[in-house]
This record gives sequence, C-alpha cells and structure tokens, in this order.
Amino acid sequence: MNYSPFIDGLENEIKQHRQAISSYNPTTGEKLTGHYPVSTFADLESAVDNARSAAGHLGESSPEIIAHFLETYADRIEANGDEICRMAALETGLPYEPRLKTIELARTTDQLRQAGAAVRERSWRMATIDSAANIRSMYTPLSGPVLIFGPNNFPLAFNAVSGGDFAAAIAAGNPVIAKAHPGHLGTSRLLAEAAWDALNACRLPRGTVQMFYHCAAEDGLKLVAHLGVAAAAFTGSRAAGLALKQAADAAGKPIYLEMSSVNPVFVLPGALAERGEAIAVEFFGSCMLASGQFCTNPGLLIVPQGQRGEKFLQTAAALFKDNPSGPLLSEFGAANIQRSLSVLQEAGAEIATGGEGDGFQHANTLLRVSGEAFRADPASLQTEAFGPVALVVMTRDTQEMAAVAASLEGNLTGSIYSDSQGYDDAAYDQLAPVLATKVGRLLNDKMPTGVAVSPAMVHGGPYPATGHPGFTAVGIPASIHRFAALRCYDNVRPHRLPPELRDENPTGEMWRLVDGRWTQENIVSKVTST
Amino acid sequence: MNYSPFIDGLENEIKQHRQAISSYNPTTGEKLTGHYPVSTFADLESAVDNARSAAGHLGESSPEIIAHFLETYADRIEANGDEICRMAALETGLPYEPRLKTIELARTTDQLRQAGAAVRERSWRMATIDSAANIRSMYTPLSGPVLIFGPNNFPLAFNAVSGGDFAAAIAAGNPVIAKAHPGHLGTSRLLAEAAWDALNACRLPRGTVQMFYHCAAEDGLKLVAHLGVAAAAFTGSRAAGLALKQAADAAGKPIYLEMSSVNPVFVLPGALAERGEAIAVEFFGSCMLASGQFCTNPGLLIVPQGQRGEKFLQTAAALFKDNPSGPLLSEFGAANIQRSLSVLQEAGAEIATGGEGDGFQHANTLLRVSGEAFRADPASLQTEAFGPVALVVMTRDTQEMAAVAASLEGNLTGSIYSDSQGYDDAAYDQLAPVLATKVGRLLNDKMPTGVAVSPAMVHGGPYPATGHPGFTAVGIPASIHRFAALRCYDNVRPHRLPPELRDENPTGEMWRLVDGRWTQENIVSKVTST
Repeated sequence: MNYSPFIDGLENEIKQHRQAISSYNPTTGEKLTGHYPVSTFADLESAVDNARSAAGHLGESSPEIIAHFLETYADRIEANGDEICRMAALETGLPYEPRLKTIELARTTDQLRQAGAAVRERSWRMATIDSAANIRSMYTPLSGPVLIFGPNNFPLAFNAVSGGDFAAAIAAGNPVIAKAHPGHLGTSRLLAEAAWDALNACRLPRGTVQMFYHCAAEDGLKLVAHLGVAAAAFTGSRAAGLALKQAADAAGKPIYLEMSSVNPVFVLPGALAERGEAIAVEFFGSCMLASGQFCTNPGLLIVPQGQRGEKFLQTAAALFKDNPSGPLLSEFGAANIQRSLSVLQEAGAEIATGGEGDGFQHANTLLRVSGEAFRADPASLQTEAFGPVALVVMTRDTQEMAAVAASLEGNLTGSIYSDSQGYDDAAYDQLAPVLATKVGRLLNDKMPTGVAVSPAMVHGGPYPATGHPGFTAVGIPASIHRFAALRCYDNVRPHRLPPELRDENPTGEMWRLVDGRWTQENIVSKVTST
Repeated sequence: MNYSPFIDGLENEIKQHRQAISSYNPTTGEKLTGHYPVSTFADLESAVDNARSAAGHLGESSPEIIAHFLETYADRIEANGDEICRMAALETGLPYEPRLKTIELARTTDQLRQAGAAVRERSWRMATIDSAANIRSMYTPLSGPVLIFGPNNFPLAFNAVSGGDFAAAIAAGNPVIAKAHPGHLGTSRLLAEAAWDALNACRLPRGTVQMFYHCAAEDGLKLVAHLGVAAAAFTGSRAAGLALKQAADAAGKPIYLEMSSVNPVFVLPGALAERGEAIAVEFFGSCMLASGQFCTNPGLLIVPQGQRGEKFLQTAAALFKDNPSGPLLSEFGAANIQRSLSVLQEAGAEIATGGEGDGFQHANTLLRVSGEAFRADPASLQTEAFGPVALVVMTRDTQEMAAVAASLEGNLTGSIYSDSQGYDDAAYDQLAPVLATKVGRLLNDKMPTGVAVSPAMVHGGPYPATGHPGFTAVGIPASIHRFAALRCYDNVRPHRLPPELRDENPTGEMWRLVDGRWTQENIVSKVTST
C-alpha cells in the first residue's frame, strides 16, 4: 500500500498512456496547469480491493483509533489551511476570506471533530437492549467502502474526501473511495494528502481513504454497482444523481443523493407590510452567497401581489442589478443557467433584471411570474437555475400561496416570513401544513442558506431533493446512520458481544436504550452466561 | 366513504363485468367457494385519492385517536378470533391450535397494541432538540398512503391489513392500502372488516385503511410508482420483490422488501461432540414449523465432516423421513421446491431423504453437499427451497466454515452453535466476524425461527435478504421509522411547533434528545418568542 495510482506518482501515471484532466480558474476562465490522471476501471477495481481489506482492519480497530484519525486529519487540514484555501480560491473563484479560510475550513474541521467525538462516545450506534430476552442490537459498519461523489460548490466542507459525507462514512467505520470534483482537483489532492498523512500517523491502512480524479462516465456507473462497494453518496445535479441512483438501485446498493432544490420562501402579507424592505435585503444577501451556488439557495420567492409586492420586487431587483455578480464554478455555468431561464420564460416568467451570461459569468437575474401562471405549469417554473437567479411569484391571496406550496416538488427547505403582531397567524396555519410535507426543513423568518452543523439539523427532504425522506446529510448522529447496518445479537454469549452491547457501558457516556429507557448506566443483567 | 369497491358489495362488483379470484384449501387441494373481485387501475387510483384525503385527516388527528384505533382494532380481532382463525386454517392449512389461535393471533394483537402504546408515548419520533440554536427535528408521517404487500406464510401477523408493516405504517401516521395475499383472501376480508369497524368506532375516515384483493401485475407496478403513494412494503419472493423495487426506485419511492433467506446455521466441532443429537432434534423442529415456510427457516446447516457429522445427518434425516410433512401454502408450492431442488442437485447436492412432491404436498427433504462443492458454486447452493427442505454442508475444518460464510449472500439470520466448555471459542472468533457481516441477526446456540417482538429485534439484513441493511420489519420503534420522514423546524416560533418539539414534554414519558442528552424532562428554554 505504498503506492496508489490515484494520488501518488501523478506524472508517471499520466505518461503511461493515460488521459489527464485539469481544473480551471473561474475568475480568468483559464485552464490551470495541474494535470490529473483519468482512472481506468481496473484502477477502480483495485481501489475496491484495497478498501475491502481496509474494511476488515477498521472492523477490528478500536473507536479510539478512528476518532484519532478524524481529529488528526482535522489538525493536518488546519496546519496546511493557507495552501488548501489558496488553491480552492484559485480553482473555484470563491473568496479566500472570509468564505474559504474563516468559514468553510472551520466548518470542515468542526465536522471532522464532531464525527470523531461521536465515534469516541458511541451513542450514534443507538444500542438497543432487551435484557430479559438477551436481544441486543445497534448500528454497525457496512463492511465495505462508501463511494462518495462531492459537489462543485463546497470545495472543503462537502468535498468527497473531507466533507460531511466523508466524516459520516468514516465515523460509521467504513473506508471511503472519493471521487474528486473536476472543479477543484488540486484542492482535493491537497486534502487527500493530508488524509494520508493522518492515516500514517494513526497506523491505519491507506485503503481507508482513497481518491480518484476522473473516470469514464460508464465506469462510474459500474463502480456504484460493484459487488464490493457497500453504499454511495452523491451531491450534485439531478441528471447525474438519477443516473447513479439507477445503477445503485439495480444492484441493491444504498445510495444517498442530494440533487436539487429551489428552496421556496413565502412572505406573508403582514411581514411584507411590516418589513418588506429588510426581507428584500436579506433575500438578496442569501441569494448572492457564492453567486447563488448553494444547495439551499432561495430560488423561489412567493409574495402577495399589489403595491407592496411591486415595491419588494423593485427593491430586490435594484440590489440584483446594482451589485456585481461573482464567478460561476464551471465553464458550463452560464450555459446551464441560460437553459433554465429559457424553460422559465417559456412557462411565462418575465425577466425583471439580468438575463445575460457567458462561460464563468452570469448577470444577477430576477424573474417574475403570476401565481396563476405558476399553478398552470409548476413543473417548468420550479426549474433550478444554479447561480445568482431567483423567481418571484406574485400571488393573489394566501389561498393561492397554499396552492403554490401544494404544487411544489420535494425541497431541502421552505421558509415562511410572518409579521410580529399575529396578523399573519391564520395565513401561516393555512400554508405551513402544506409546505411542511414538501421540505426537510421548515424555517420561520429566516433565509435557508445557513445550515448549522447541529444534531437537530436536517439537510434532506422528499424526492427529488434527495433520494429518501428519512435521512439527513448534516447533523450527527443521523448523518452517520446512512452508512451503517442495523445488526442484532440474539442470545449471544456475554463475552462475545461487542463492547457497546455488554452490560457495562463502555464509555460511561454512551446513551443506550435499555428496556425502554435511555440511559448511560451499566446494566444489572438478568442473563447468566451459558 | 360509505362504499368501497374493495371490500363492500363483493357480489355486485363481480357481477359488474369484473374478474374474480378465489383461495384454495391446501389440505384438500380444492378451490374454496368465496369469490373476490379483481381491481382495475381506476379502482386503485380512487383508493389513492381516498387515502390522500385520509392522510390529511390523520395529520390533524391526535396521537390518542391513532393509538385508540390500533387498540380497538386489536380488540375487534380478538372478539372475532374464532372465525378469523377458522378461516385462516381453512385457507392456509396451518393448524388452528396452537399455531393460529394461541400463537399468531396473540402476536398480531400484541403488535398492534405495542404500536398503539408507541404512538401514545411518542418516543418513536426521536425528537432531537438544539435549544440554543432553536433547531428541532423529528420523524413525521410521510403524508401519503403506504402500500403493503403481505406474504402467504403468516395470514395474521404479517397480513398486509393487520401485520407488522401495517401496524408500523399506521403508527407513523400514514393511511394504508393493503393488497390481500391470494392464499388467504377470506381471512384478509375478515381482518379488513374488523379494521373498518374499529375505524368507525374511532371516527377515522375509511380511507385510513383500504384493501384490494387482486390486480393485473402491471397495475401493481404502476401503483407502487404512483405519484400519490408515499412508500411501499413487500414480503415475499425475490422475483416479485425485485420487480416492485425496480418500479418504486424509478419513481423515487422508498420500498422495504423482505425477499429471501436461507438462514445458515453453523455447528462447531465442540458443540457437535457435546450435543449433536439435541441440535439435530432442535434443527428438525425449527425446520418443520409451518412445513418450513418461515422466512427464518434454517435452510442451510454447516457441520464438520467425519463420523459425528454423519451421525448428525443420519439423526436429522431419520426425523425428516419418519415424520409427516404438512400442506404447503400454495398450489405451486411443490413445483417451486422441485425447481430449487434441481438447481441444488445440478450444483452437486445429493438427496439424503425425501425429494418428491406435487401440488400442495412435498416430502420433508434433506440434502447434503461437501464444503468444497459449496465453495465452487455458492450462488446455486444458496437457492432457497420454500418448504420442509434443508441442505447440510459437510466442511473439512473451521477455516472452510469461515470460507462458506464468506461466500454467503445477505441473510436475515445466521446462527452459531458452540460447546459449553470453551473448546469452540477460537473457531467462533474466526467464523463470527465473517458471518456477522452477512446477516441482520446473529444467534448463539439457537435456531432462527423465533422472532421476538422486541425493540431490540432486527428482522432485516443485507441485500438480497432485504432491500436496505439499515432497517427492520419487527421491533418498535425502528420498524416505524421506515414509514416516516425526518423533518426539521428551524427557528420556528414556539407556539407553532408540534407538541413533541415544544419545551414542555407532551406526555411526560416521551424520550427526547435535548442538547445531547436523552431525557423525559421539559426544556428550560433559552429562546424567547419573536
């Protein structure tokens, strides 16, 4: 395991008749000089082999070692934070400060450390014990690698080799095979190298964390369905997500997807009257984060029509128009937005400001449409435009707002702004039950772009926002459960039980559901050893 | 809602140019006189419409009412227990006593009451609260009907309209559309009528529980993928399960499957020497339950070759030979077993006793094969023969036992028998880690057929035993989570939160994960109302 075709010896690999790819500088539109190999399917299969033997090793490793790895990795990322963030800024056009260094790097290391703490404390296993019947169960590793495909928009915090899915998959005790996103190959390489340093420091096999840069699309589909792969996670476009889902489903492999979301924000009449301008400013700020390239970007605003609605639109449009747009993450970014704009316009949306773009640049764009038009073609008018773009729906009354909510697909989030005096309460009660069934997270008086790394967070939602409404990609312990198998030990002799299921609480802090009560205590066992 | 094409007015429905089906008496092989309509796709769509409006009603109903329905339904089943069990005995050939009346009926009503108690107490929601950030999440209903396909082998406890999946789906707050199994149409009708009585008594809409008897296969696939259906559950054959899975997957619908399992039982050398005969008797008893038609039937025994192994096989074979076989559940039962026997024999298995069968009858059948032959073609030699059939694998040593375990597909269960003096401990340590990764439930010194309804039970396992390794069909609360969506309330004003997420604990008994601690206490909130 001293050599990997994925990270070591890049130059050699490329010389050996392999194709290579590069990232771009979105700010200048120029191709960057680094070259990264394209893996063959044989490479990918050997990665699966490495990972499977690492899975055996991890299965026998103590939680301490896995926790120590996650924490050491966080330390290594911090130690090399300047270089990593400079590279990420170069490759993504996202600002070095405060976005990458102060915010995203800190979030990344915090996630890794939270995962490490969870591994050490062990409550994530949801140990459930029926002491009278001597039946004991808990979440266990999947016994094979988790394949992770990260998105373009968070080069650190959702990177396949360092982000939330990575931390959760490792915390569950699984090896990871990460696919670097083409938008930040160099950043991913620096992160993978830090991971490898940490693996060495913790004496874990290199097969625990592997990364490849690129492969043929059909090889990616074959890999997801590979007998030796345990599960997969994907964050990105709906088209790519659904193709991977089809391949994984056919092979009976769990796959967790985060695909698309327009994150509707409803502004009720009282809120509009009370603080319409402040909400417009807040909306603009949220929509412009990373040039609108957040999965929780507020892409759909629903406001009451009329004078105040027009004022709101004017305020927002002026902000969109008068502020510069940032670079997009991909050379295809503007073309993708243009395609979405065409769908929206054909369905009746009109451009209030913006509309033009090319390559890595697109003007901040605000569109408007009537509630009636939206309800006539909700499918088209929910088309996501990944960038600094939003559609304002002007509704006749709160009944029409609820009808718009009822016509929505599954989304990650849904927000409702209401006034502070209770004037909007009846409208809220009409709208919220409808909207709640369409989203993973319902917000009050808040834009959706802040995703706190909290145990209570849900970064998930009904299809097609994700592939399954019962899971979350952010928030420990639930995010870890995606990559775990539920396993029961029935009448297993006490000395053969995993420590987490023995009578003695292995950490003194681990929460376990013992005979219907959640407790940190030891069990006074009713079982005698056979 | 006073009339349903599914249960009311059977005679009228059939007269109106519909096809009808009947059940058989497996004991005599004769068709029973009852006729039950075949539903058109229009019928099924109207069931979805009814269920969706019932879902809205359930969403606004208190947990008390849903709990009361589950408990009232259990009472109604008990009140009509004689008639239900007589009909079930007639349609399935399973003995009225003790199997149906004393065991399965009691299990069925116990499951319904456990689900009712969980609904009332509310801990199943896994409420998770970050009080400082005011982020609160929990499991919520799916907001649409759950479609349930039950198996032939448990006409009450796994019946689509009364079994474990039913209880879990209702407990999560969802309406159910049940498909009766053709093997026990009359039993299903009696149960559905009891459910309707209970719905009326609790003033819940009839769309809460609907049942149909049969439909064209393609209509079943369309129904699973129907936009208005929230999720599905299936217990039965792998072929039917995979067809439904493909349809559900393509539409992004969660589907929970329990498909097939040979439930390997490993007898280590010390155990064989110590109590081989007792284990053979236990194995025979387990394998003959309901003529071997249990999903946890021990279909694969792995024993050390040699004199003791031969003795074990002889003892078991004599029991298989000298005891009568019971009726099979389906007219195709024997033909299906014969097909499986052909596959097993072609791969090298030899019949030790039995082998013949026709229609509803098949001889108790024991086969044998060498460990070497098994390892040469593990796929064929894991073919499930649903009936009183088992294959004994004679292994050279414990290393070969571990190799056999490594070649297994996903199973519901795996058992290991070891001696009481510690002689088998090294062999156990070699085998158990391999076997554990292949099963949902690992047993010691116990046959797999007893599935206790305990919170710690896992009736699940890796693909293809089920469709997802993280879930269980038995054991509250986990079985309920399959039919729930995770939803977060972010910054939602206190008076708008569901009772389960407010500062005050709504039952005083509900367990909630508050700021990292599981507690039944109220929250001393740090949030002030906006």
